[in-house]
Amino acid sequence: MTTLNDSSAPQSAATTRFLEEAAELLGPRGFTVDPDLLEPWLTDWRGRYTGKALALASPATTQEVAALVALCAQHGIAIVPQGGNSGMSGGATPDDSGEALLLSLRRMTAVRQFDVEARQITCEAGFVLQTLHETAEARGLRFPLSLGGKGSATVGGLIATNAGGTQVLRHGSMRALVLGLEAVLPDGQVFSMLTPLKKDNRGFDLKQVFIGSEGTMGIVTAATLALSPAVAERVVIWAGVPTLGMARKLLLHCEAAAGDALEGFEVLPQACLEAVLDYLPDARAPLEGKHGWHVLIEVVADRTGADTLRERCETMMADAFEAELLEDAAMSANEAQAEAMWLIRESISPAERARGPAVQHDISVPVDKMPDFVETTAPMIEAKWPGTEAIAFGHLGDGNVHYHVIAPSVTDGAAWQAGTGKEISRYVHDLVTEWGGSISAEHGIGQLKKDELARLGDPVALSVLRAVKQALDPRGLMNPGKLI
Amino acid sequence: MTTLNDSSAPQSAATTRFLEEAAELLGPRGFTVDPDLLEPWLTDWRGRYTGKALALASPATTQEVAALVALCAQHGIAIVPQGGNSGMSGGATPDDSGEALLLSLRRMTAVRQFDVEARQITCEAGFVLQTLHETAEARGLRFPLSLGGKGSATVGGLIATNAGGTQVLRHGSMRALVLGLEAVLPDGQVFSMLTPLKKDNRGFDLKQVFIGSEGTMGIVTAATLALSPAVAERVVIWAGVPTLGMARKLLLHCEAAAGDALEGFEVLPQACLEAVLDYLPDARAPLEGKHGWHVLIEVVADRTGADTLRERCETMMADAFEAELLEDAAMSANEAQAEAMWLIRESISPAERARGPAVQHDISVPVDKMPDFVETTAPMIEAKWPGTEAIAFGHLGDGNVHYHVIAPSVTDGAAWQAGTGKEISRYVHDLVTEWGGSISAEHGIGQLKKDELARLGDPVALSVLRAVKQALDPRGLMNPGKLI
Repeated sequence: MTTLNDSSAPQSAATTRFLEEAAELLGPRGFTVDPDLLEPWLTDWRGRYTGKALALASPATTQEVAALVALCAQHGIAIVPQGGNSGMSGGATPDDSGEALLLSLRRMTAVRQFDVEARQITCEAGFVLQTLHETAEARGLRFPLSLGGKGSATVGGLIATNAGGTQVLRHGSMRALVLGLEAVLPDGQVFSMLTPLKKDNRGFDLKQVFIGSEGTMGIVTAATLALSPAVAERVVIWAGVPTLGMARKLLLHCEAAAGDALEGFEVLPQACLEAVLDYLPDARAPLEGKHGWHVLIEVVADRTGADTLRERCETMMADAFEAELLEDAAMSANEAQAEAMWLIRESISPAERARGPAVQHDISVPVDKMPDFVETTAPMIEAKWPGTEAIAFGHLGDGNVHYHVIAPSVTDGAAWQAGTGKEISRYVHDLVTEWGGSISAEHGIGQLKKDELARLGDPVALSVLRAVKQALDPRGLMNPGKLI
Repeated sequence: MTTLNDSSAPQSAATTRFLEEAAELLGPRGFTVDPDLLEPWLTDWRGRYTGKALALASPATTQEVAALVALCAQHGIAIVPQGGNSGMSGGATPDDSGEALLLSLRRMTAVRQFDVEARQITCEAGFVLQTLHETAEARGLRFPLSLGGKGSATVGGLIATNAGGTQVLRHGSMRALVLGLEAVLPDGQVFSMLTPLKKDNRGFDLKQVFIGSEGTMGIVTAATLALSPAVAERVVIWAGVPTLGMARKLLLHCEAAAGDALEGFEVLPQACLEAVLDYLPDARAPLEGKHGWHVLIEVVADRTGADTLRERCETMMADAFEAELLEDAAMSANEAQAEAMWLIRESISPAERARGPAVQHDISVPVDKMPDFVETTAPMIEAKWPGTEAIAFGHLGDGNVHYHVIAPSVTDGAAWQAGTGKEISRYVHDLVTEWGGSISAEHGIGQLKKDELARLGDPVALSVLRAVKQALDPRGLMNPGKLI
């Protein structure tokens, strides 16, 4: 079987029939084989993977998705579901066989229900994260998960990849915010658990099978999500500490002092800060001196606690000073200062990219082991591959850092990434596994880490994952080549 | 095949060989066929179900459980896992074929790890809830889930049934407190995800398949659980409101005013309170007048918030009065008063039982619909079955009430329960299903509601549950006759 995009290739009669039936089912707005219209969606946003597809289907309703999936099942056509196409691991990009159908959920953007009083919203899979933020804010609420791709990331994609971000410390990752779910199963049946019951003990929590499954168990079509009260005030604190171990002690102090008000705790080394200051000419270092590590702490209050928030933060930091948990600290006096501190954090990735080729790892280990992990492994890597620089930054509060290894000055970045870089990644993943951690803390497996998961995953856990996959999708038609 | 308990029955050669091998594997402390030793564990604690078993196995380690399960798989012997035998739905009681092995986890009581700083404890399946409470309290922490059977309920049983209780409003049910899990699969493999990673995105959250699965997918042998800071102070408030709808409005007010400090919100009607006062001669009504509904509100503070807790509660209640959300209220001035209020709540079940035969339902509907549900359906039931009384009480904050229908003065309670009572239960479950709710909010399915789940469960959801069950336990050896 070949793809329609490749107009020189012949089309089998069976494929032609499927395409005709699908076109009829979805109409011209919902179905196309036009290569120009497919093209933007065949490469992942980091530009690592490019594939081919039979056609692009864009159903507008759950009923259309269900009918389409049933049609695919009937014809044995594989499906690659896609939301905003802003995933980090190539999970929404088809392979280059051209035999799969690309199924975009972007037309499904309805808000089915918005219960302001109960702080719950039911929206369809194609609803964009930024629109969700705005919808919630307009009613004095917020959706407490955000990430760089918020302008394109969709609710369906966020659920399929169990997205994280900088608020996981307090609110959990996407999984914790999904109260109800609707999905189309590989045979076209509609699985509907949208009604949010706070307590329901009819067997295990079935919706979990779809959250984080990267489209391999079915297609998420809608979800009921938990919203939080809007933030009335926030204080952002920038602290300098000598070591990552001390940052961890400061984290424990802040958790005890601020409790649920502690919303973010991000770390970056001095070198990272300097890269950002080079990259952002207008940015200023929040502290005067140099420190081994910098910590960005966000503390928030809703309406009820706003009057005491600043006072509480001042006490918290005064106590931290007294306990010698930090070298220096600055506290935002207004929103502009708070934003300026966050801008530094959010510029780390582009600033690092500007420094040259690197291999990136999105890893977690138990929170208490993270300082030792970074301090032990970074010198090992730098010694084994002279000229490299291993840099960790990110969500210390979650035991999750982004661990980048920057190439020595080399002529060909792509060749380095494909050769030495790949060796380094295997080595980092080996180390993470030895330390009891995960080779994917928040970016998912997709195509990017599928081989590494097969190599390093616990064989029993993999056998459970494969058994469930086999049970729900025995023909392997759902997002083939991803995750499992 | 027949049971050893029944000494008159012959034993097949294959069964004899299995029993010999199991006895050798586990030794005399870990294995018995003595009817006197089996007897206490063959009836569920509510006394509804009695079964027979081939033998009682009590392995002491995960390795022994794994070897035993593998042996059972080899011989095709079914297994009924049991913790404290204090489940509400007969999920841990074998059927009366006598062909299944009763597998007690009560000897597995080790604490494998206790990280006070990270507030995490890893303990084995037989660890008793009350011991868990005491272990945590000794180090200034607490495990925020409690229930009536805490003196016998085990960690493994709590996970297998996803137990609830009165703190779900703030802390969630057992599922939310399980950070890591170890389980033996139906083929004897050990599934180990004990290391608590706050973020891990290697596919869907596999441990969810075991939580709430009532022993049908495998046997939980250990878990890593989340602990909370100890409570420094609590205030218990008793409020009188005219209707359940008003109680719901008061709930929304308290959620907004107290935020995460709101730990419990329980409701009971006037008749329930009177039954308790009859049952507990020393108890006094917390309020002077009569009210349609009574509300018990618990607000807690850890160390950091204790200084402002009482003040905050006073403001919260003054505002509630002003907004006319309640008729009267009393606030505990000390621990003794707080305990006295909780004693009333905890005595509802025995007080109701003392009033005569009834059928009980553990149901949930979306929280906002609960007042309408109770006010609409109770009169329908009382009209359809004259002389009955429908009473709801419990966890309004979770959308979960215990819904008891008390028999008219009848001569034979057991006959009424088996006849009219069963009809009423079907009717209640029909109504709950119509209202988008769950026929089991926290007690599980077990034997008690298996037929009702098959009758009323969403067919697509049931097909997913069955597919996963079939994938993991194709021969149906794990807790047969329960849940699915």
